[in-house]
Amino acid sequence: MNRMRAVVFDGELAVREDYPVPDYPPGWARIRVITAGICQTDLEILKGYMGFRGVLGHEFVGRVEACGDTSWIGKRVVGDINAACGTCEWCAAGLGRHCPSRTTLGIDRLDGCMADFCVLPVRNLREVPAAIPDTKAVFTEPLAAACEILEQLTIDPSHRVAVLGDGRLGILCAWVLTTTGADVTLVGHHADKLSTAAWRQLRCVTRLDDIGERVDVVVDATGSIGGLTEAMQICRPRGTIVLKSTVASKDPINLAPLVIDEITLLGSRCGQFADALAIMETCPDVPLERLISARFPIEEALTAFNEALYGKPLKIILDV
Amino acid sequence: MNRMRAVVFDGELAVREDYPVPDYPPGWARIRVITAGICQTDLEILKGYMGFRGVLGHEFVGRVEACGDTSWIGKRVVGDINAACGTCEWCAAGLGRHCPSRTTLGIDRLDGCMADFCVLPVRNLREVPAAIPDTKAVFTEPLAAACEILEQLTIDPSHRVAVLGDGRLGILCAWVLTTTGADVTLVGHHADKLSTAAWRQLRCVTRLDDIGERVDVVVDATGSIGGLTEAMQICRPRGTIVLKSTVASKDPINLAPLVIDEITLLGSRCGQFADALAIMETCPDVPLERLISARFPIEEALTAFNEALYGKPLKIILDV
Repeated sequence: MNRMRAVVFDGELAVREDYPVPDYPPGWARIRVITAGICQTDLEILKGYMGFRGVLGHEFVGRVEACGDTSWIGKRVVGDINAACGTCEWCAAGLGRHCPSRTTLGIDRLDGCMADFCVLPVRNLREVPAAIPDTKAVFTEPLAAACEILEQLTIDPSHRVAVLGDGRLGILCAWVLTTTGADVTLVGHHADKLSTAAWRQLRCVTRLDDIGERVDVVVDATGSIGGLTEAMQICRPRGTIVLKSTVASKDPINLAPLVIDEITLLGSRCGQFADALAIMETCPDVPLERLISARFPIEEALTAFNEALYGKPLKIILDV
Repeated sequence: MNRMRAVVFDGELAVREDYPVPDYPPGWARIRVITAGICQTDLEILKGYMGFRGVLGHEFVGRVEACGDTSWIGKRVVGDINAACGTCEWCAAGLGRHCPSRTTLGIDRLDGCMADFCVLPVRNLREVPAAIPDTKAVFTEPLAAACEILEQLTIDPSHRVAVLGDGRLGILCAWVLTTTGADVTLVGHHADKLSTAAWRQLRCVTRLDDIGERVDVVVDATGSIGGLTEAMQICRPRGTIVLKSTVASKDPINLAPLVIDEITLLGSRCGQFADALAIMETCPDVPLERLISARFPIEEALTAFNEALYGKPLKIILDV
């Protein structure tokens, strides 16, 4: 059996040289990974999230190495992380990312992409247009999660929008929303991250009060339950709060303002890769590379994870 | 100055005989109250909610006694509880119940209806059709709050719906939803209240497991934050939870399921009185009178409140 390099979590994090190269079932492809991103979810997995064991990683760009449909071989691709059954009612409705029997790349019962190779269903793959460099394409997954907001909600230039949280996801949401022409304000606590975020007409501020009047839409990407309390303060009656924070926090919260102001709270998770690639093509100036704080070769993954855990970077990527 | 009987809260609850009869400004009417209902909000006010001081009560049916527009005099009416400014953008959009400078009958800076007389803007009044008896009309306000769900959300016979909570509001929500032809299940913990609730095809159960598969829409009318946790358990991915519980609770809650399942959470409060009256007219079999646990004359309001606080009734009404 062939062996490969892989970043493996089995209760401890290790870079292994002898991990088995994965097989690809019918309808799946094997991808040679070019670059992989370290995500907050990866750090949560190290703390026990999902009880995951195996190869980490779900953000990647790579090249198809083996596939039953030979037309895919050699193509540069990104891939939707949810491996759905393809037959249930969710899959039939094009919502495989809610398929109840799905596995998830590097998160739930499916080895991830921080390795020489990973496997995914062919229907999950999207070819990356030649004009999009690897350093942008590696952001497809988190950018798709930001695009999901526009699938759930219609936003146009008449809307006032606030995004709370100046981490990767907050900045990506703010950029995606800015492409709609809406009046968008990003609220964060880190001057360096806010200056990284400045793009087009996006306004970046450090205080909630700087937003002015209550807004139509608030995106909570703070990663803490306190962000939702702030969101309720600045959302207008009958407005919408998009909840992007998935922390399994159990802090107290008073939800009465949701009822009194009849606010709609939308839980929002993964999005469509096609939407993310479309934004990279139509807005080539979206400055995704700015989010790369550091790059490491896969052999130095432990150092990279250490930096991700303690360095408070925007995005660290691994070159495979 | 004329005096009247009134149920007054000024830190202590008292029935007074010497309360001044209220004046009615231009555009307002004075109403002789026939019957008033005791609501959970009244009980919350006794604990300090809204810091309200004055005449309690916001659920009533009455007869217009004085009004600049004399065509109203003598008409039997119910009245929207939010006295809006009538000029702001919310009022212009027909959403006076979100007017930022509104006062609220018996809740916020406006004396309520547990008295011989109360006053409201004429535009708040709705004439009660002759076919609707006082014992039904007194439920217009809470029934309107239940109707609000149908204003926010389209529900049809293809939907599976669960209502959590077998109090007044939960039962009213279940009845309103049942009129749509949807498959509705009411979940409660009180056999007597559930048997009161049984109507048309409504299914009444005591265990969450009895619902079966996860449903499209869940209405949380439990009045406790724990209801929202249960709602997240039984709501399907991409489904909707309507939050009717306005308790100012600060208990811990894990909202991660909202994000993972991309659930829409709709805060829902007051509704349109016209919608409630329409349901009473088109569905004369809706058994609102069943909810009346006891009736007291206004002089016995302290006994009535005591019963409301400690007797766990569905609805107690005061005859004025």
